[in-house]
Amino acid sequence: MPRVTVICGGVGAARFLRGLVQAVDPAEVTAVVNVGDDSVLHGLEISPDLDTITYTLAGAIDPGRGWGLVDESWQAMEQVRRYASANGISAHDDIGNDAAGWFSLGDRDLGTHLYRTSRRHAGATLSEVTAEIAVAWGLELRLLPVSDDPVRTRLATTDGRELTFQEYFVREQHGVPVRAVRVEGADAARPAPGVIEAIDGADVVVIAPSNPVVSIDPVLAVPGVRDAVIRARTRTVAISPIVGGVALKGPADRLLRELGHEASVTSIARWYTPLASTLVVDDVDAELAADVESLGIACVVTPTVMTTPAAAADLARRCMEEGIR
Amino acid sequence: MPRVTVICGGVGAARFLRGLVQAVDPAEVTAVVNVGDDSVLHGLEISPDLDTITYTLAGAIDPGRGWGLVDESWQAMEQVRRYASANGISAHDDIGNDAAGWFSLGDRDLGTHLYRTSRRHAGATLSEVTAEIAVAWGLELRLLPVSDDPVRTRLATTDGRELTFQEYFVREQHGVPVRAVRVEGADAARPAPGVIEAIDGADVVVIAPSNPVVSIDPVLAVPGVRDAVIRARTRTVAISPIVGGVALKGPADRLLRELGHEASVTSIARWYTPLASTLVVDDVDAELAADVESLGIACVVTPTVMTTPAAAADLARRCMEEGIR
Repeated sequence: MPRVTVICGGVGAARFLRGLVQAVDPAEVTAVVNVGDDSVLHGLEISPDLDTITYTLAGAIDPGRGWGLVDESWQAMEQVRRYASANGISAHDDIGNDAAGWFSLGDRDLGTHLYRTSRRHAGATLSEVTAEIAVAWGLELRLLPVSDDPVRTRLATTDGRELTFQEYFVREQHGVPVRAVRVEGADAARPAPGVIEAIDGADVVVIAPSNPVVSIDPVLAVPGVRDAVIRARTRTVAISPIVGGVALKGPADRLLRELGHEASVTSIARWYTPLASTLVVDDVDAELAADVESLGIACVVTPTVMTTPAAAADLARRCMEEGIR
Repeated sequence: MPRVTVICGGVGAARFLRGLVQAVDPAEVTAVVNVGDDSVLHGLEISPDLDTITYTLAGAIDPGRGWGLVDESWQAMEQVRRYASANGISAHDDIGNDAAGWFSLGDRDLGTHLYRTSRRHAGATLSEVTAEIAVAWGLELRLLPVSDDPVRTRLATTDGRELTFQEYFVREQHGVPVRAVRVEGADAARPAPGVIEAIDGADVVVIAPSNPVVSIDPVLAVPGVRDAVIRARTRTVAISPIVGGVALKGPADRLLRELGHEASVTSIARWYTPLASTLVVDDVDAELAADVESLGIACVVTPTVMTTPAAAADLARRCMEEGIR
C-alpha cells in the first residue's frame, strides 16, 4: 500500500482527507497540519485546523457551518456574552478581547479544548494530545501538528494593526485588507516528531487545497519542512485552492490579490512550482493548463470541488496516480 | 441603615447572605470571601466560593447540589470524560489530573469561568471581574474576594500527600485524613481594595457559619484582615458552623477532630473568642451556652439551620441585634 503524506490547513484539507481514507489504507496516511491558527482564548488552547480535520474524519463536523460539532449546544458562550453585554464589553475594546465571546465555542467542542488544555498544562506535547483526541474519535490515519512549538500566523492590516489569525478570520470575518503576513515563532520551531520522516518516506506528498498564504505557508515555514517537500518534489502533487479565479471557501483569493498576486491557477502554479511537480486544477480552469505547464509544473485537469465524500475520493485517487507515476 | 460586613466561605455563607439581604439594605452589605479554594482547572480560573455566593443570591444555584447553576447541562464535561476514558486517564494518574474530568463544570457555569479567565488574562483583577459578574446577575450587595493575589489552601494528608482544596474536597470527597492545613501565598497577599475599610467601617461584622479551618482561616490569613476583625471584636458576631457536634455540610467536624480539636460549639467558641464578642449557636446546643460564655464570649441561642430564606433572614436579624447592642 502506498504511503501518503498530506500538507494540511483546515476545511479543504479535511474534505480531501475524508476522500483519501476511502481511496487508500488510512493507516498509511499522515496529515501534517497547520498550527498557525492556534490560539489561547479564554485560557483554553484552541487548535482549529486539527479539530476541523478530526471532527470531519469522525463524521461529527457540523455540515452547515463546516466547523465545530454537529448537534452542538451553546450554553457556555451565551453566558459569556451575557456577562460581556451586562458590562458593555465589546470585541473591539482591546485587540483580541475574547471576553466579548466573538469566538464561538460549542459546549461539546469546549470539552476538546478543556481536555487539550489540561493535558498540555500537565506536560503533554500538542502531538501527544492530538493523538489522544484522534484515538477517542476512532481516527485511523496519523494526525501530526507540524510543530509542538508555538507557531502563530500574524496578519498586518493596511490600517496599521497586527491581528492573530482568529482575530482576522473570525472576529473581523476576513473583511479587513491585509498588507503582510508573518509566521511568528517559525524560526525557532522544530518539526514535530515524525513530520520530516513522513514527508521523506511518503510515496506521494499532497499539498491540500488549503489557503497557500495562511494555511500551507505556516506549515512550510517550520525549519526543515519546506526543504523536505522540495526533496520530495517529484512525488508531490498540489491541489489548487483557487477554482475559476475564486477561493471555494475563505479569503484565499482576496489575500493573494492583497499581497500582490493574481487569484488564479497560474498564480498557484507559480507559488507551488518549487515544491510540487504536479498541480491539479478544476475542469473550469482547463484553458489555463498550458499556462500552468509553461511554468514548469505538470497540470492535471479534473473535478476538484469536493461536494461529496465520493468526489473527494475520486480526487484523491487521481492525486495518487499522478504522484506515483 | 446599618452597615454589615460578612466574612464568608461558600455554601453556609451564601445561605446566610440570602437571608441578610432580606433583613437589611443590600447596598449596605459587603461580603469578604475566601479565595483559598480557587484553582486553575483546564486552564480556567475557578472561584468556587465567589460563584456559590453569586449564584445563590441570584436565585440561580442548583438547590439539590448546593453548587453550580440550576437547569444545567453537562455536554463539555461529558466530552472531556470521553477523551479521558478513551486514553485510560484517571484522576489519580498524577496528583490533580483534571484531564480526567473529576471537577464537574456545567456548560452555563463554564461561561462564568471563560469570562473570568479572559478578563483576568486581559489584566482585570479578581475584584474587578467579581464585580462584573455580580452586576450581570443583578446582585445588590458588594462582593469582595479577600485578596486579588493568589491565596491557596493546601491540605497535608496523613499518607504524606499535599492536596489543593478542590483535590481534597471534590476529587477525594473529603475522605482522606488531614494532618495539617496551610494557606499558600497568604504572607505575600494584600487585602483586596475595600476589604479592610469594609471591616473597619461596619456597624456589625458577621463571621458566617462556614468551615473555620478551610474557609474562614484563609480569609483571616491575609495580612491585615485578622487584625481588622480583632479591632472590630465588640461588633463581631460569629455563627457556629457546628450544630449538635456535626457540620451541617462538608467536613468541618472531621477536620476539627483531625487537627486535634473537638467538634463542638465550645471548640468553635475557643476558635473565635479572640475575634468575636458573640457566638450564635443553635437551639440543640443550648446546654453548652454556659461553657461557651465561660470562654469569654457571649452566647446567643437561636435556630441557625437555614432551611429556608426566611429562616436565614431571622438568623440575620438576630445577628444584627447582637452586633449593634
